[in-house]
Amino acid sequence: MWILRLNMADRTYRLDEVPEAYRLLGGRGLSSTMILDEVPPLCHPLGPNNKLVFAPGIVTGTPAPSAARVSVGGKSPLTGGIKEANAGSSWAPTLANLGIKALVVEGQPKEKGKYWMAYLSWDASASKPKVEFLPADEYVSLSFYDAFPKLYKRFGERVDIAGCGVAAEYGYANSGIAFNDMFKRPSRYAGRGGLGAVLASKGLKFIVLGKTGGPGVPILDKALFEQGRAKLADALRTHPITSPKGALNTYGTAVLINLLNEAGGLPTRNFSNGRFEGAPKIAGEAIFEINKQRLGKELYNHACSPGCIIECSNTFFNKDGSEHTSCVEYESDWAFGANCGIDNLDDIAEMVQLCNAYGLDTIEAGGTLAVAMEAGVIQFGDSKGAINLIDEMGKGTPLGRILGGGAAFTGKAFGVVRVPAVKGQVMPAYEPRAVKGIGITFATSTMGADHTAGYTICPEILSVGGKADPLSTEGKAALSRGFQATTAFLDSTGHCLFIAFAVLDIPSGFEGLMEECNGMLGTNWKPEDAAKVGGEILKKERAFNEAAGLTKADDRVPEFMKYEPLPPHNQVFDIPDEVLDAVYGEL
Amino acid sequence: MWILRLNMADRTYRLDEVPEAYRLLGGRGLSSTMILDEVPPLCHPLGPNNKLVFAPGIVTGTPAPSAARVSVGGKSPLTGGIKEANAGSSWAPTLANLGIKALVVEGQPKEKGKYWMAYLSWDASASKPKVEFLPADEYVSLSFYDAFPKLYKRFGERVDIAGCGVAAEYGYANSGIAFNDMFKRPSRYAGRGGLGAVLASKGLKFIVLGKTGGPGVPILDKALFEQGRAKLADALRTHPITSPKGALNTYGTAVLINLLNEAGGLPTRNFSNGRFEGAPKIAGEAIFEINKQRLGKELYNHACSPGCIIECSNTFFNKDGSEHTSCVEYESDWAFGANCGIDNLDDIAEMVQLCNAYGLDTIEAGGTLAVAMEAGVIQFGDSKGAINLIDEMGKGTPLGRILGGGAAFTGKAFGVVRVPAVKGQVMPAYEPRAVKGIGITFATSTMGADHTAGYTICPEILSVGGKADPLSTEGKAALSRGFQATTAFLDSTGHCLFIAFAVLDIPSGFEGLMEECNGMLGTNWKPEDAAKVGGEILKKERAFNEAAGLTKADDRVPEFMKYEPLPPHNQVFDIPDEVLDAVYGEL
Repeated sequence: MWILRLNMADRTYRLDEVPEAYRLLGGRGLSSTMILDEVPPLCHPLGPNNKLVFAPGIVTGTPAPSAARVSVGGKSPLTGGIKEANAGSSWAPTLANLGIKALVVEGQPKEKGKYWMAYLSWDASASKPKVEFLPADEYVSLSFYDAFPKLYKRFGERVDIAGCGVAAEYGYANSGIAFNDMFKRPSRYAGRGGLGAVLASKGLKFIVLGKTGGPGVPILDKALFEQGRAKLADALRTHPITSPKGALNTYGTAVLINLLNEAGGLPTRNFSNGRFEGAPKIAGEAIFEINKQRLGKELYNHACSPGCIIECSNTFFNKDGSEHTSCVEYESDWAFGANCGIDNLDDIAEMVQLCNAYGLDTIEAGGTLAVAMEAGVIQFGDSKGAINLIDEMGKGTPLGRILGGGAAFTGKAFGVVRVPAVKGQVMPAYEPRAVKGIGITFATSTMGADHTAGYTICPEILSVGGKADPLSTEGKAALSRGFQATTAFLDSTGHCLFIAFAVLDIPSGFEGLMEECNGMLGTNWKPEDAAKVGGEILKKERAFNEAAGLTKADDRVPEFMKYEPLPPHNQVFDIPDEVLDAVYGEL
Repeated sequence: MWILRLNMADRTYRLDEVPEAYRLLGGRGLSSTMILDEVPPLCHPLGPNNKLVFAPGIVTGTPAPSAARVSVGGKSPLTGGIKEANAGSSWAPTLANLGIKALVVEGQPKEKGKYWMAYLSWDASASKPKVEFLPADEYVSLSFYDAFPKLYKRFGERVDIAGCGVAAEYGYANSGIAFNDMFKRPSRYAGRGGLGAVLASKGLKFIVLGKTGGPGVPILDKALFEQGRAKLADALRTHPITSPKGALNTYGTAVLINLLNEAGGLPTRNFSNGRFEGAPKIAGEAIFEINKQRLGKELYNHACSPGCIIECSNTFFNKDGSEHTSCVEYESDWAFGANCGIDNLDDIAEMVQLCNAYGLDTIEAGGTLAVAMEAGVIQFGDSKGAINLIDEMGKGTPLGRILGGGAAFTGKAFGVVRVPAVKGQVMPAYEPRAVKGIGITFATSTMGADHTAGYTICPEILSVGGKADPLSTEGKAALSRGFQATTAFLDSTGHCLFIAFAVLDIPSGFEGLMEECNGMLGTNWKPEDAAKVGGEILKKERAFNEAAGLTKADDRVPEFMKYEPLPPHNQVFDIPDEVLDAVYGEL
């Protein structure tokens, strides 16, 4: 396999052999290592010296289940630290099957405001991939919903597409990188941390991959890999959360709305309450029921990418039975719903659709709207006003530029003190004061506030992988550390994080996961090695962040969560600073 | 003397004896010490736990020359670190003469958007100061030029006024605290770092001081003090920069325009050149000549505050001979002039006047306009457009809120890479690539980019206190360290920084300075102790910043200055990181 480098300064490319040091790495492990190795930590995120690394996971491109993920790494315009955001898309296995272990976007054109696209395909005659750089100016300022069909028309149906939207063109710190889903919709996102703006700063609008040809992904020990794959697939098919017609396949991730609300941990109206009276109206169950009414039949969810067993992505339908958007994830639903005091799923779906159109991260967007509501720009619950504000972002008006900077930026613009962000990144749908373990993850993750960085919700809310009292502080630092380290490993395999539900509860599933990797790489990893391998990745990310100027002062929840008790439990965030510091200190 | 605390949570106050630990401190030394002692470094700058400390200098309130300065300290909304900004105003000696060594504003009202003013006067019957809290809502959203006359009408002519303007009400990180000048104009500023917004966040619009009564400032050894005062006054009257009808008294601080332009160190069009073709048209000499034409006579400058020998403040007049604004300082002139590509002094004067009206720091405002010009919001040289942008800030429009956040904030909003800021604070009127020592000060100062924090311009440009080649890197770390430490001492005495010109060149002046202080405090400081005493203050400021999360990564000039050579010398900023780290490392 190769490392492919696209130099946007002069639109040239280079294929390098994979260095031995990178052989065992993939996904997040590879993207974070390369960013640490190659990006000056103090560079301007939108300047010529930042880079983007696209790395498929270790097993991505193989028949491993639920494993079509690509990690995107770079220095984040939002946090100022290292960023890895990953997405599930057929783009990921296509890149892997073209023989690319990592695609690096580097350099910067002298021309400002000019855009290109890179068309990467298999050159059968040369037996290697080739890249064409084509002008992309005609796609500038287009909605993704207009741009993607144009691209499919131009390149044919057998391509996968990654790209940045208008939010990225404006340089917003809230701008993601979009990937196509199985229905060619621009709905899969490496959303968090503003990596879209980094791509745009390189003058690169789209990376189009031809799906034809390519050497595929080499597997060192096919039998071992197959043995692991089967065990993992079995576990996924068995666990009630991940099984067909199980919780995720039926209600999607928004099944969490009622659970978090019940626990008093559903952040409501800019993190001023842990319960939302409108929760049932926006819950996953409501999505399922509304779709059933509107379609006249029960609709189970679909896969975001090939080879997925879980199939958790919903589509939300209009009253007339036409498609409104895909997909209304829990965190998006919460961000525009409970956190904005909005209980109308049609309006929430519209906001998701708009964010996908403009290339905005829904979590950051919803968190930003809630801060704007706190500032009095519009009122909590004003869903039409909220939709208008997202349109302001899409239009690049001055107000849109404030909101496009994210929640912390918006808080500064309006002098708002209650901003629920860590390292500049807004908190997702879990209240640190009501679910202490996830608060530790938010505070200490190398990524800024990020639930996917160490999802202690498993034991704290879902009784998966054990059971922990969400309100208790006991043992939560070790819990978060373990989840963060294991997640860094999981994000390297290319598997979806959701396989964790199954592998945490079903030991043979975890064994299968490690056997898959051992089959790929020739390693001899056991389940207990996952946290060790992941821990090394965290250390690298931490090293980058330290060199970028982040300190333990950045490993804190916002001050107001320490003096403002949260209803209904009326607790503050009471994890001592020393405990937070021990999360990475004892890694 | 007392420490006076205004608790804005419930509008009560308290007079405390000065603790022994604070006895030798004044001005910056006292404000920085109290902020370190009392403010949680990770608090939100606009939240309930930040404080503002107003501390007159050690000799302020005495007959010491050019010594009517007050230091304002707090956690800065602009830099996230400690901030000391000082201003020269009769407000400072009045506070001292009321027996107040430090006035602390703390707490936060529950009521949002409600404002009070504190009227501090001498209670002769109780032989101590008293404070009345009065509603100030009628002054909200008023220009300072409307508010100050209303206040003088209400409280009579014998009061001094400090307050925050509309910029502060909006919570802008660019918002200063204004003080009256000798003509009751709201033109003297503790401008940098957003301390106005901190005052506004406390619900405190104005601090009005009655000038009648008060115990005065105690002097331990009057003869020694008088001996020192006389030596210092002599030096000031002798040195060509500070003497009557000398450089500052004639041309004001803007005498520097031609000097910096000649040196290739006058940042032009957002720090893209070190020379401005329009420099002669905006120079101090031009101000003098234009005033002479318009008034029909030569006009020398006036003092900003009582007891000043230097008298460097100009007033700029309209064509019809009416007053336009006071005062057009070098840094303001540069900020709206060369840095914006504007060579029209009438428009520059208008921008100064507007900033004074709204309560904006002119340096940050001009630096912000230049970044907005780089972003294409308006064109370089568009002075009418620039005036409009300042009005946007005054109106609190979304665009105004972006600009009000300062240059670094505006850069983020528009995705601009070339932002000449350190620690979030925009660089003032000296190019680090052409004047290396001041670049070291900008990079390493605890205050963010701040020329007053260590004015190596003295030897590098003015041949004051020795002579150093501005383009050379040799010995510049030690030079900056020495200037930073001595300045921290000077800022504690209450003297204007401009006495440095005289005391650096005239040894008896420096002796006089120390004798003054020794007479006040009973110390036995020699000239060589100034840097030692100041160094201890810097260490405290640094300690606050470290606890607030600032690291050596924050002690760097912006990346673009390291790869973009600056005309006309075509040099980059080539001070190695280790040298920067040694500035405070070897303190």
